[in-house]
Amino acid sequence: MIISMRKNAARAEIDSVIQRIEDFGYKIHTIEGEERVVIGAIGVGDTSACLEALEAMNCVEKAVRISAPYKFVSREFKPGRTTITVGGNVHVGNSEFVVMAGPCSVESEKQILESAELAAKGGAKILRGGAFKPRTSPYDFQGMEEEGLKLLAKAREHTGLAIVTEVMSDNDVSLVASYADVMQVGARNMQNFALLKALGKCGKPVLLKRGLSSTIKELLMSAEYIVAHGNNDVMLCERGIRTFETATRNTCDIVACAVLRELTHLPVILDPSHATGKRSLVPALSRAGVAIGADGLIVEIHPNPQKAISDGAQSLEPAQWLDMMKSLQPYIELWKAERMSTVAV
Amino acid sequence: MIISMRKNAARAEIDSVIQRIEDFGYKIHTIEGEERVVIGAIGVGDTSACLEALEAMNCVEKAVRISAPYKFVSREFKPGRTTITVGGNVHVGNSEFVVMAGPCSVESEKQILESAELAAKGGAKILRGGAFKPRTSPYDFQGMEEEGLKLLAKAREHTGLAIVTEVMSDNDVSLVASYADVMQVGARNMQNFALLKALGKCGKPVLLKRGLSSTIKELLMSAEYIVAHGNNDVMLCERGIRTFETATRNTCDIVACAVLRELTHLPVILDPSHATGKRSLVPALSRAGVAIGADGLIVEIHPNPQKAISDGAQSLEPAQWLDMMKSLQPYIELWKAERMSTVAV
Amino acid sequence: MIISMRKNAARAEIDSVIQRIEDFGYKIHTIEGEERVVIGAIGVGDTSACLEALEAMNCVEKAVRISAPYKFVSREFKPGRTTITVGGNVHVGNSEFVVMAGPCSVESEKQILESAELAAKGGAKILRGGAFKPRTSPYDFQGMEEEGLKLLAKAREHTGLAIVTEVMSDNDVSLVASYADVMQVGARNMQNFALLKALGKCGKPVLLKRGLSSTIKELLMSAEYIVAHGNNDVMLCERGIRTFETATRNTCDIVACAVLRELTHLPVILDPSHATGKRSLVPALSRAGVAIGADGLIVEIHPNPQKAISDGAQSLEPAQWLDMMKSLQPYIELWKAERMSTVAV
Amino acid sequence: MIISMRKNAARAEIDSVIQRIEDFGYKIHTIEGEERVVIGAIGVGDTSACLEALEAMNCVEKAVRISAPYKFVSREFKPGRTTITVGGNVHVGNSEFVVMAGPCSVESEKQILESAELAAKGGAKILRGGAFKPRTSPYDFQGMEEEGLKLLAKAREHTGLAIVTEVMSDNDVSLVASYADVMQVGARNMQNFALLKALGKCGKPVLLKRGLSSTIKELLMSAEYIVAHGNNDVMLCERGIRTFETATRNTCDIVACAVLRELTHLPVILDPSHATGKRSLVPALSRAGVAIGADGLIVEIHPNPQKAISDGAQSLEPAQWLDMMKSLQPYIELWKAERMSTVAV
Repeated sequence: MIISMRKNAARAEIDSVIQRIEDFGYKIHTIEGEERVVIGAIGVGDTSACLEALEAMNCVEKAVRISAPYKFVSREFKPGRTTITVGGNVHVGNSEFVVMAGPCSVESEKQILESAELAAKGGAKILRGGAFKPRTSPYDFQGMEEEGLKLLAKAREHTGLAIVTEVMSDNDVSLVASYADVMQVGARNMQNFALLKALGKCGKPVLLKRGLSSTIKELLMSAEYIVAHGNNDVMLCERGIRTFETATRNTCDIVACAVLRELTHLPVILDPSHATGKRSLVPALSRAGVAIGADGLIVEIHPNPQKAISDGAQSLEPAQWLDMMKSLQPYIELWKAERMSTVAV
Repeated sequence: MIISMRKNAARAEIDSVIQRIEDFGYKIHTIEGEERVVIGAIGVGDTSACLEALEAMNCVEKAVRISAPYKFVSREFKPGRTTITVGGNVHVGNSEFVVMAGPCSVESEKQILESAELAAKGGAKILRGGAFKPRTSPYDFQGMEEEGLKLLAKAREHTGLAIVTEVMSDNDVSLVASYADVMQVGARNMQNFALLKALGKCGKPVLLKRGLSSTIKELLMSAEYIVAHGNNDVMLCERGIRTFETATRNTCDIVACAVLRELTHLPVILDPSHATGKRSLVPALSRAGVAIGADGLIVEIHPNPQKAISDGAQSLEPAQWLDMMKSLQPYIELWKAERMSTVAV
Repeated sequence: MIISMRKNAARAEIDSVIQRIEDFGYKIHTIEGEERVVIGAIGVGDTSACLEALEAMNCVEKAVRISAPYKFVSREFKPGRTTITVGGNVHVGNSEFVVMAGPCSVESEKQILESAELAAKGGAKILRGGAFKPRTSPYDFQGMEEEGLKLLAKAREHTGLAIVTEVMSDNDVSLVASYADVMQVGARNMQNFALLKALGKCGKPVLLKRGLSSTIKELLMSAEYIVAHGNNDVMLCERGIRTFETATRNTCDIVACAVLRELTHLPVILDPSHATGKRSLVPALSRAGVAIGADGLIVEIHPNPQKAISDGAQSLEPAQWLDMMKSLQPYIELWKAERMSTVAV
Repeated sequence: MIISMRKNAARAEIDSVIQRIEDFGYKIHTIEGEERVVIGAIGVGDTSACLEALEAMNCVEKAVRISAPYKFVSREFKPGRTTITVGGNVHVGNSEFVVMAGPCSVESEKQILESAELAAKGGAKILRGGAFKPRTSPYDFQGMEEEGLKLLAKAREHTGLAIVTEVMSDNDVSLVASYADVMQVGARNMQNFALLKALGKCGKPVLLKRGLSSTIKELLMSAEYIVAHGNNDVMLCERGIRTFETATRNTCDIVACAVLRELTHLPVILDPSHATGKRSLVPALSRAGVAIGADGLIVEIHPNPQKAISDGAQSLEPAQWLDMMKSLQPYIELWKAERMSTVAV
């Protein structure tokens, strides 16, 4: 930590700050500047608590952390790349570009089976579909719940695809985990800490979506919650953030994919559907996602989007989905070549 | 709803849109513009679902809602003002300006009892204090949990203050409700719909904080969740939103207080502590909160902020708190005069 | 400055950084942490340039400034408060709460004279009105230009009010300065550096509006431009920033008024009209502006807003304006009492 | 336009709104809903002015535009694609992927000549370099001005590259136009309307950067200014917007490139350097820019970034630049194939 004192801080104040820092177990280096005193604190301790304590002191101008607040998810902790095995035979991470696809919500047996076949036909390895739906309005369709989970399991049997589906409450973790291959945390729940803790012990990989207004650092802290509570298999998902721009549903912070590759060993998935909210923009953004080096995509598709109960505007139509997957192939080839050359180095 | 078609929409497409709208139970008015066709839909139906369905159709340019998506919380539903009785004798709403105060976290018996006495001495009617703490880092203090709730109850006995405290999971609702007078929903949980539904049946008033990046409309929709599930006693809380500005912890959208008075009959509380993150700014913002017509404040205070476990930087020191409450008095008098004159009209 | 090196920085890299810092004239303090080396740089030099140079070095993790990047506008440079005399007898700053009012645009002789009389009747001291209008669309009314300036001068003669009006280009500075008492810089021009430089030599006070997405620090840097080029008389104006919220035209960062009072000696004016975009919200926000300690207001009014060429929705109607000014009086009294007690201390 | 009246609007109020709309030359369609009256206005007129007038009326709830506010820049006006010829032999637009590269600032003859050779060696067709620099601080290097323009011209002679350089004031337009092949408008000047008007008559193509907090629609309106004043050759540039995220200098709204291709016939250039602020992220984002279908890139490079006067942290080092351009080749091949297949259709 680096602590800069206010300009007019008295000697007694400086001493009280030093004492406080030492109480937390750090060693001190003091720099007497022309305008103010700056203190460096070295060692290992509860940095968050210490920073908060220091910022509460009137004589302190600013206290900043030098080292990252997360540990297990950092590349410093694990310099390589994490590969997560899903449903036995899908490997999300460095070696394979994995596409997940499916409808926003499970609506009926017919709809989810058709969706699953469509997903598989396009080359997806994992089927998405919501059984518990977070909806802004209490009057909107809230999902088929356990009935939906059962239909997803049926779709898995028919197609061999693994299943990713959302869990919205720590109460539902064991229920959802008994059906799903990957537990999805929605953007609105990224900092639902009770849920994150429960997922630490759920025994299934987690797909953690970035919150609408969460920083990259906060996303990593939420992943750290899951890992610190016992589950190493976390995939991060960029799905657009909220900004002033209204031309798209969200603003895709695509560079976050590249930033995350620098900061963490966990795989990063891009969601071009929520990031744009509009199906015509999904193929172009998907190409960009492969090109920037995401580890996979999660895409909304529907056998008949114009009849979808939710998110129809951003769901690809069958032909569009198959076309897109075909057009992605050469980009995925370039992606593989890039990964192999990086590994070689 | 107003639906504008794409410029080149064919007659068959327009007909398919009309059919779809009529399927949802609306009546149709078609306007044939020079550039495109615009359709008005009149009646009562599942507007959200219909809008989603229409936006999924490629021939539709835009579909917009005319009426508000919330009902029970709107002033159109209830033109007067809701007053919420807390702990038997505190009335939050139109007639009384209510101040809630206390530390960020319950830390110990001594700390919470001293805080409660300090709060009461300044004129607060409700004691705040967190027993379950949402913390960005898994390594930070997570609260005293039930032990903390017991200490809050003890502070209530000693001072007669009512208690407001946060609940973070639907799992904990009945436990927290057995101690608290007001159930607080934190900003990160504003769209934790499982929690909101549980609070609809908890039998205690709710203080619902606005999410970091939630719109005023979304705040009202979350309140609608609680009311629609059976609980009319919801207070809304503006506590700052996340923007590009980093000079303060959040950006206080103070005008939201005035906007909410136009849109809803529910009381609005301002949190100047989280909105600024810095104790020196709290008194000025509190004055502004009274002046703009909020119904109350929730303020962080601490017997010794420099030793606080959390949020020390934004907690008022004892003398500062007592001074502030004294200086607020003339503003509260003006507030009362304004409210009485408005009622008279 | 504090410079933290990357974790694995080699000794030679650290030495090259030290050399670079010393080249800029600073003295060095090195802290050897457990994880990385941190360097403190002490002295007076071209900090911005040095920071940029260091951040360009791959072995540097982060380089942060400790002291503020502005000088003349800071309270450290001038601990008191600046009072700016406008048009001979209006004093904007610490001792007087000054209201500026008038229409968005000068539209005709009749309209501006009626507006001026209305402004004066309500108690405004300065008349606002645009002769050069920044409009998002090239097809919108762009202002009456010099003809409008002449009408403003006529209104001044009739009412004795001083005049504030916008200047949009360094080309127009001398023309506008020959008519105006205060030169207004619009939000979109806050970082039009050619304009700011020209205003440094214009001989008239400047009202500098905060940019839609400008930080408080950037606002102060733009004021520093004007002062550094020779003009000390700068008033700052908070007029709302751009965020994700669309319920109001902009989001009023009212706390900026309080933050600015801590950081600078320059007066701060609040613009409740642009901050809200809606006339019904203007009186409540104006009260809050007085209460938080702004030094004045700039308010849009119009003899007949429903016929206004621009900004009609946010312009107060005559009766509303007079009512508001009456209702502000007790708040202004409290403001004066506060200022006098502060001065006494 | 669609105008929705307030719920309780009286018949006389509705009539006054209808009258007002008809005064602007539109025809009326009235829809009597269950809750309120909605009015459709059809025809051609001054929509912006009419909307403003209507929003100023208290009985109007909302007035929304159906057609786009820009004309000449829209694909509806020109369904094909604009190709802009720069310096005689470079064609920016649909058929060629054009890379512009160079340092942030022109610093010296040696530096700009080395930069130009480096740019050409990597395959750039246009040299960038600032002679007039917009700097947040008045104490930072402000550019070499005309001297810098002369050095750019020299670099053009040596390498055959065309020149793009920034102009900051309408005052400097003719000076800059006498040297430059492309006139760059910086993000801070996107709504400097005096400058935009002057560029309408400058006789050179313009590269218009998106403002830090400007919407895509506002970017198109600023382009419309230039076109409406006589200059059809405008390239748009996405360079990152300002959001809450601080991990990167700005947040790249890469999807804007795809949205703009849907809305306008003008070419779109991506600036990966300002969008990220960090050289390690530039190659990945450049690949994504090609993949999403931008028409070109503008990249900061420097013979020795660690000694650059400005923007060193985001400038590519020589080897990195050459590597990147090599690695972009297969993506550019895919881009060409895509464009040819689109044209064929």
